[in-house]
Amino acid sequence: MEVQIAMAKVSKYAVSESGDTLEVVERPNGGLSVVLADGQTSGRGAKAISQMVVRKVIGLLAEGVRDGAAARAASDALFTEKQGKVISTLNIASLDLNSGTIVLTRNNPAPVFICRGEQISTIEEESIPLGTSRNVRPLITEIGIEPGLVIVIYTDGLTHAGKRRGMPMDIGAAIRSVLEDQDPTPQMLADTLLAEAVRLDENRPADDISVLVLKVTARIGDSARRMSVRLPLDGIARLS
Amino acid sequence: MEVQIAMAKVSKYAVSESGDTLEVVERPNGGLSVVLADGQTSGRGAKAISQMVVRKVIGLLAEGVRDGAAARAASDALFTEKQGKVISTLNIASLDLNSGTIVLTRNNPAPVFICRGEQISTIEEESIPLGTSRNVRPLITEIGIEPGLVIVIYTDGLTHAGKRRGMPMDIGAAIRSVLEDQDPTPQMLADTLLAEAVRLDENRPADDISVLVLKVTARIGDSARRMSVRLPLDGIARLS
Repeated sequence: MEVQIAMAKVSKYAVSESGDTLEVVERPNGGLSVVLADGQTSGRGAKAISQMVVRKVIGLLAEGVRDGAAARAASDALFTEKQGKVISTLNIASLDLNSGTIVLTRNNPAPVFICRGEQISTIEEESIPLGTSRNVRPLITEIGIEPGLVIVIYTDGLTHAGKRRGMPMDIGAAIRSVLEDQDPTPQMLADTLLAEAVRLDENRPADDISVLVLKVTARIGDSARRMSVRLPLDGIARLS
Repeated sequence: MEVQIAMAKVSKYAVSESGDTLEVVERPNGGLSVVLADGQTSGRGAKAISQMVVRKVIGLLAEGVRDGAAARAASDALFTEKQGKVISTLNIASLDLNSGTIVLTRNNPAPVFICRGEQISTIEEESIPLGTSRNVRPLITEIGIEPGLVIVIYTDGLTHAGKRRGMPMDIGAAIRSVLEDQDPTPQMLADTLLAEAVRLDENRPADDISVLVLKVTARIGDSARRMSVRLPLDGIARLS
């Protein structure tokens, strides 16, 4: 089997820096975790918050702290610093090689989609962001790693896409249409969802948007781990 | 323009965990840094060392500390803990959006290849690993971001590939042959170098091997940032 993870993100229109932060960290036992935070508001202030949250969580995960405890610690740190005035969503997706599961930690009102073949379900119990109070509880979902599993996680920029024009995105339908079409790579799925959202926002995203897709395949290839990053510089005036 | 970064790594034969650690962190100004460390020996002990070095460097970079200072701090921390008995190589490749340059920081005897079209040069001044003494100096090279630039960084597993059989790898020739062939993606180049090294080691790598390739392209696409990860699970007994 192979786990493939893909992310795509854009920042709010006319804001150079996305307020969303997404990073990957190796876990002490050889697995890995992807950590996604969306700080309140946009631009520089939001970036500082989401980076603080992600740094805190990643530092703890690297020390072997469990995901739920890391989320609680980040929430406490944020609440202590900002007294509930600034909040941040958090999603952690961990490939836990000890338990052979994917562990999803969620402090984000936006749901998470779990797809197995034709079957698409959502995790959408009420979930509140970090930093809102002294005792924020993360929602933890553990899923066995099996071929065909696809998980879609996103920040609320995707939820809000098109709402300005009264044409909100049907995220479930968009996922279904890509999955039915063919056997898409996770990058194709993430890119398609992001492109659809940007289109609904008339190419001027009303918010930062990040999409994260995990896919388990039956593929048997070599045993190399691979990572790739693409960073467009076109929008950055001082470089052009 | 777009900066594309690709990494491929394998662990030493019959060792489940690579002693090399490679992580990506966003810089406070919107750029990013890739940090690669190779801890002495292999397996669990080496992993703990390289993870400690990478965590230290990444934490400091995220706070806005400059690359050279972060490398020195990691070296001092390692020397203080291990008294020079355990060392680690370190490479940092940073996309610095303030200066419009790629900043390469090197504490690794292995050279770095810089390619521009047909022209391939190396950075290979003597460079010593972290943790060897109280005052380890990193070598810093700053390169303007321009289309066509390709940078290849690796750990010594690549240098040592094939030596067991008296057939060491000619890394420069291997890079040249891929670059001449066509306009390869950085992932193609990293994968080809890794595959060649594994072949020379008769499919039983004598050491952990990590290859990191950066490429600047003139490409004008959308403004989304993308990241993807592939993690084979086949070698992990408890999951199969």
